[in-house]
Amino acid sequence: MYCYKLTIAYEGTHYSGWQRQPNAGSVQEHIQNALERVLHTDKVKLTGSGRTDAGVHALGQIANFKWHEELDLNKLIFAVNGIIPRDIRIKTIEIVQPDFHARYSAKGKVYHYHLHLDQVMDPFKRFYSWHVHRPIDLELLKKACQYFVGTHDFTSFANEAHSGSAARNPVRTIYRIDIVEESGGLRFEFEGDGFLYRMVRNIVGTVVAVASGKRPLGDIPELFKLKDRSKASVGAPSRGLFLVRVNY
Amino acid sequence: MYCYKLTIAYEGTHYSGWQRQPNAGSVQEHIQNALERVLHTDKVKLTGSGRTDAGVHALGQIANFKWHEELDLNKLIFAVNGIIPRDIRIKTIEIVQPDFHARYSAKGKVYHYHLHLDQVMDPFKRFYSWHVHRPIDLELLKKACQYFVGTHDFTSFANEAHSGSAARNPVRTIYRIDIVEESGGLRFEFEGDGFLYRMVRNIVGTVVAVASGKRPLGDIPELFKLKDRSKASVGAPSRGLFLVRVNY
Repeated sequence: MYCYKLTIAYEGTHYSGWQRQPNAGSVQEHIQNALERVLHTDKVKLTGSGRTDAGVHALGQIANFKWHEELDLNKLIFAVNGIIPRDIRIKTIEIVQPDFHARYSAKGKVYHYHLHLDQVMDPFKRFYSWHVHRPIDLELLKKACQYFVGTHDFTSFANEAHSGSAARNPVRTIYRIDIVEESGGLRFEFEGDGFLYRMVRNIVGTVVAVASGKRPLGDIPELFKLKDRSKASVGAPSRGLFLVRVNY
Repeated sequence: MYCYKLTIAYEGTHYSGWQRQPNAGSVQEHIQNALERVLHTDKVKLTGSGRTDAGVHALGQIANFKWHEELDLNKLIFAVNGIIPRDIRIKTIEIVQPDFHARYSAKGKVYHYHLHLDQVMDPFKRFYSWHVHRPIDLELLKKACQYFVGTHDFTSFANEAHSGSAARNPVRTIYRIDIVEESGGLRFEFEGDGFLYRMVRNIVGTVVAVASGKRPLGDIPELFKLKDRSKASVGAPSRGLFLVRVNY
C-alpha cells in the first residue's frame, strides 16, 4: 500500500467544515468523492489532521489516504482539482511512509486569527476576519495572550465536541502567540502541540474582551482555575480563523 | 446646495457593475436607494467617477450627490452602511465645493490588475486575480508595458461602450505602468489621466499574450497603428481589476 499525503487550501465560508456530515457539504466529502471518481472505486478513506468548523479556512490542511497502486502525482492533482469546487484546491500530493497518519502523526499546528480594526469594514475582509469596533489596547492584548503560552489545562477554553468522543486530555502546550500588525488590523499567530475543539476562537474571544475593557486581565488566571467553559467569553467568529500549517 | 463626496469600496463579484442598469443589481443603485431611504426622498442623483464592469472591484470609487441640507456625516455614513449589502462599504463622506463632479472633475485614475501565477490556484484569489498557467517572461512583460506609457490613440485597446455615447476622443495619457511582484504572482499598477472602456483589461490581455509567447512584441506598435480593436488580444477577465484611486 502507498500512503498519499495531501496539502489542501480552502475557503470555509460555504462549507459545514472539514468533516463529512450528514446533510451538509464538507471539504472532506468533496475531495474523497473526487478521489473515488478518479480511482474508479468507492473505497477511499480520507483522514484529515483534524476538523475545522463551518466558516474556518485552511491554507495548509493535511489529509492522507492509502491506495494499492503507485499513482502519477501530477495527473492525480490535476484530475482531482478538475472535479472539486474552486474554493477548495489540492496544493500538493506526496507519497509518504506507510505509517503516516494525518491526525496521529501530527506534532503541532499553526493557526492564524485575523482581527479587523478599521472603523468601516473593508468589504474584502468580510469573510476572513472579525471586525471589532471597540478600541483595543494592544499592550493589554499582548499581556492577556501571554497567560495562554505554555502547558495548561485548557478546559475553560474548549467546547464539547459534537461527536460522542470520550473525555480527552484537556492539557495542551502553546509554544507561541504572536500578535502581528497588518493592514486594517492585526493577526494572532498560534503555534502549539495541538488545540482542543474551538480553543483558538475561545482564547481570542477572551483576550479581545480583556483588551477592549469588557473584563479585567485578572480574570484569565481565574478562568484557568475554574475549569468551566461557561465562564470564559463568547468565542470569536469562525471566519477570522485559518489553519495555516500542520507540523509532523 | 451642499455637495457630498463619497469614497466607496466594493467587491464587484456579485454585481452588474457600478452603473444602474435595468434588470441587474448595480453598486450605484444600492447606494442611491439607501441615500433616498435615509433622506426620505426619491430625488437623489448619485454620480460616479466612471463605470466599472461586472466583476470589477473598487478600493476607492468616488461618487457625489447634492442635497439642500447640511447633514451629520458620521450619522449618514453609519445609516447608509447599515442598509447596503456588506460587499459594498462607504469608507468616507465629505462635503466638498459645490461645483465638484465625480466624473468631470477627475484628473486621473489608478487601477491595479492582479495576475496569479502559481501552478495551483490559491482559492482565496479566485475572485480577485487572473490565474495564468503559461510561463510569463517578466522582462518581456515590462518591455511590452512600456509601449503603452505616454500619450497615444488607444482605439485598438478600447471596446465600444454599451450606451449610445457619441464617439469619444480616443487619446489618453498613461503616466506609469508599474509591475510589482506580490505573493503568488504580480500586479500591474496603471496610472493615467483617464481610461477608455475596457482599456486596462485589453492592455493586460495583450501584454500577457506577448510575455507568454503567444504573439511577438513587435505586434504592439502595429496595433497602435491599425486602430482596430479586433486585432488586439482578448481582454483579461474582470475579476483581476481594482479601481484603486481617483485623482482630483
